[in-house]
Amino acid sequence: MKKMTKRELLAERGWIARRTVVFLSDFGTSDGAVSAMHGVANGVSVDLGLYDLTHDVPQFNIWEASYRLAQSLPYWAAGTVFVCVVDPGVGSDRKSLVALTASGHLVVTPDNGTLTHISDRIGLLEVRSIEVEAHRLAGSQKSHTFFGRDVYAYSGARLASGQVAFEDLGPVIPKLVKLKIERPRLEQGALIGSIDILDARYGSLWTNIPSEMLEEMGVGLGDEVAITISNDGRIVYGYHLPLCKAFTDVRKGEALIYVNSLLNLAVAINQGSFASQYQIGSGEGWKIAFSAVS
Amino acid sequence: MKKMTKRELLAERGWIARRTVVFLSDFGTSDGAVSAMHGVANGVSVDLGLYDLTHDVPQFNIWEASYRLAQSLPYWAAGTVFVCVVDPGVGSDRKSLVALTASGHLVVTPDNGTLTHISDRIGLLEVRSIEVEAHRLAGSQKSHTFFGRDVYAYSGARLASGQVAFEDLGPVIPKLVKLKIERPRLEQGALIGSIDILDARYGSLWTNIPSEMLEEMGVGLGDEVAITISNDGRIVYGYHLPLCKAFTDVRKGEALIYVNSLLNLAVAINQGSFASQYQIGSGEGWKIAFSAVS
Amino acid sequence: MKKMTKRELLAERGWIARRTVVFLSDFGTSDGAVSAMHGVANGVSVDLGLYDLTHDVPQFNIWEASYRLAQSLPYWAAGTVFVCVVDPGVGSDRKSLVALTASGHLVVTPDNGTLTHISDRIGLLEVRSIEVEAHRLAGSQKSHTFFGRDVYAYSGARLASGQVAFEDLGPVIPKLVKLKIERPRLEQGALIGSIDILDARYGSLWTNIPSEMLEEMGVGLGDEVAITISNDGRIVYGYHLPLCKAFTDVRKGEALIYVNSLLNLAVAINQGSFASQYQIGSGEGWKIAFSAVS
Repeated sequence: MKKMTKRELLAERGWIARRTVVFLSDFGTSDGAVSAMHGVANGVSVDLGLYDLTHDVPQFNIWEASYRLAQSLPYWAAGTVFVCVVDPGVGSDRKSLVALTASGHLVVTPDNGTLTHISDRIGLLEVRSIEVEAHRLAGSQKSHTFFGRDVYAYSGARLASGQVAFEDLGPVIPKLVKLKIERPRLEQGALIGSIDILDARYGSLWTNIPSEMLEEMGVGLGDEVAITISNDGRIVYGYHLPLCKAFTDVRKGEALIYVNSLLNLAVAINQGSFASQYQIGSGEGWKIAFSAVS
Repeated sequence: MKKMTKRELLAERGWIARRTVVFLSDFGTSDGAVSAMHGVANGVSVDLGLYDLTHDVPQFNIWEASYRLAQSLPYWAAGTVFVCVVDPGVGSDRKSLVALTASGHLVVTPDNGTLTHISDRIGLLEVRSIEVEAHRLAGSQKSHTFFGRDVYAYSGARLASGQVAFEDLGPVIPKLVKLKIERPRLEQGALIGSIDILDARYGSLWTNIPSEMLEEMGVGLGDEVAITISNDGRIVYGYHLPLCKAFTDVRKGEALIYVNSLLNLAVAINQGSFASQYQIGSGEGWKIAFSAVS
Repeated sequence: MKKMTKRELLAERGWIARRTVVFLSDFGTSDGAVSAMHGVANGVSVDLGLYDLTHDVPQFNIWEASYRLAQSLPYWAAGTVFVCVVDPGVGSDRKSLVALTASGHLVVTPDNGTLTHISDRIGLLEVRSIEVEAHRLAGSQKSHTFFGRDVYAYSGARLASGQVAFEDLGPVIPKLVKLKIERPRLEQGALIGSIDILDARYGSLWTNIPSEMLEEMGVGLGDEVAITISNDGRIVYGYHLPLCKAFTDVRKGEALIYVNSLLNLAVAINQGSFASQYQIGSGEGWKIAFSAVS
């Protein structure tokens, strides 16, 4: 994505409201909670387009929410507003934030780490602390437990419809809560990174290592690559796999390395689940290393 | 919500169609049924906004559908049309209804009890019986088993887009099918009510007791409150818990009483599930009592 | 649905873009994949209505995707664009298609059989092979594994918003990949067909036999009908069941034959699951026969 200056972004948002809000939460969709957020946003303006990134983030899993947000946000147009509510600290004194990303997106979310991957990969131009009592749904003052509906959906919808400006939601804050991310790096000839996440449906491992780094090691399509996967220092998988263009480059049931849709290195089994077959997990503690086969 | 007279509501709907339809069912979203309802509504007018409250109501669970509808509807703007299809009696001679609520919403649903909680909490200004053969999707006469698509989605979309008036769908009916609800009350110093539902994702107990009633007993934030939970008269839980502002007022794994997003009393475990830990259910037969600790 | 000539359809699409895209996949909705497709489509035009048929097709189950598409598509208006992505061969050299149906709908999908049921029931006026490198999201060239986002969502949105014409996406192809379908037929007094699918939520068997064919045998509502169900030639169920107008025509737990919402013959248990009670499956190999009780 092209980076924009804050001036350019605000100008753009000034003359066209994108009218699009994308919701992310750990609420699930079996009760009325997500619908209440949609209703509040629709009530702010019937002309908004309301979308759901997912509401199946594992309960209280801030890290996955942060990752999912960074995974999907770049594919939405600048000016799109994200409302991200995974909030174990709801009702506590944790701040409520609105962030302007370097890509021109806005994110409304509690200050608990959900902006970590966005900040790391895309960048944040400015983050403000929402003055909650001034920017919440009328009549919702008594409810302390559903900020997602009363503050985040409401403020996100007002931003998306141009009824409130980014600057008017609250003061700039110098720093925000962030989770620890393992950076991809080259160490003694091995390409090291973390397993960001497990591709939910296909059981692939998605690493945070850009495919370019492997190319820099002189490894190309069809080459065998040595892989080591460890969990808290204990090696749980070690083998050679081919770097493939497509799952179908190997037989059904065979493992491969490929470049995923985020252009990072990933490991999978053609029409199977690498994660469950080898009991691999994701997030902090999980480490993966790639090296050329000599 | 401000109550309106029928005249005010119809006038409002006369000069502005809200163009918003919200769907609720027990169909799930793994087959094409919900999409067929969306398609029929979109075919009536491409300018409608179509939303889903949930389609994961337990199969044939009219009580939960009624509850979910009342939980979400107040957060949508007046003029929004709800299409609620949990219909074990589909194809039988049960009536098809369109209801105008005191809050200015419209609900299209079979006459089987799904309007119970709306009627109890919000009020119904007028209920009409839809003349099905006159108000169904052209060419759908042969299908007796998918009223949700052929009659309810179709009529709901025509209402939302102003193509048909509430009064023209069919005659007013004097009474409708309702489920039995336990009313919250004060009895010998104890505040008694029912467990309306289990918060699907967090395992909290949501009661039908307004938080004001506890305040009237002189109980405030931080106070310990005695709780007794019984199922068909058999006591299954009894203990003292603090009335908290936030989950985080107690340690992870500890239980608390709080005011939920509907401003009713609720019982939860911080980052745990009260319902599964103590095997608590919801609906008819479940009774909860709160009393001050002397 | 009224069949239209290609000229009529293109004329219609010429003067009015339907601005509606419906997505179908096996991605599930727990990660950011579906949201990325929505974001790309919304980025093409903020005025599009984006809907989801389902994303819960069993992984790589092309047959069910083909069936679900044919089940839902007829209930959407002509001009609606479908983006159908169940694609085990992603990254291989399988073609990418855009199909114009006899009903005036457009389907963007890989050439792997997902158009089978549409072709069989509705008909295809013309199928083109998308020139992928010319019609993909800018900057997506490096990703070989997410055609759903980079090519199908992008091209589908451009079609729906009138930014590209059907004819401009690529050359007409003479034939496409199709799955084998068992046709309903009358054989020695028995009405034979296949079990198309199991109604996900209610456990009913949906056959591909039009209810008219039973009427032609002189069987009417209330009559008992003999049923035989076999799997790869082995009989797994045989009994007499009544042909009913509604589930409630039999007692709770009793089985019946009815006309489903597609006007085909179906078999169910009132408030139960026929499929799980008798271990019945669907698709290739499963055969069902109905005959009059003499």
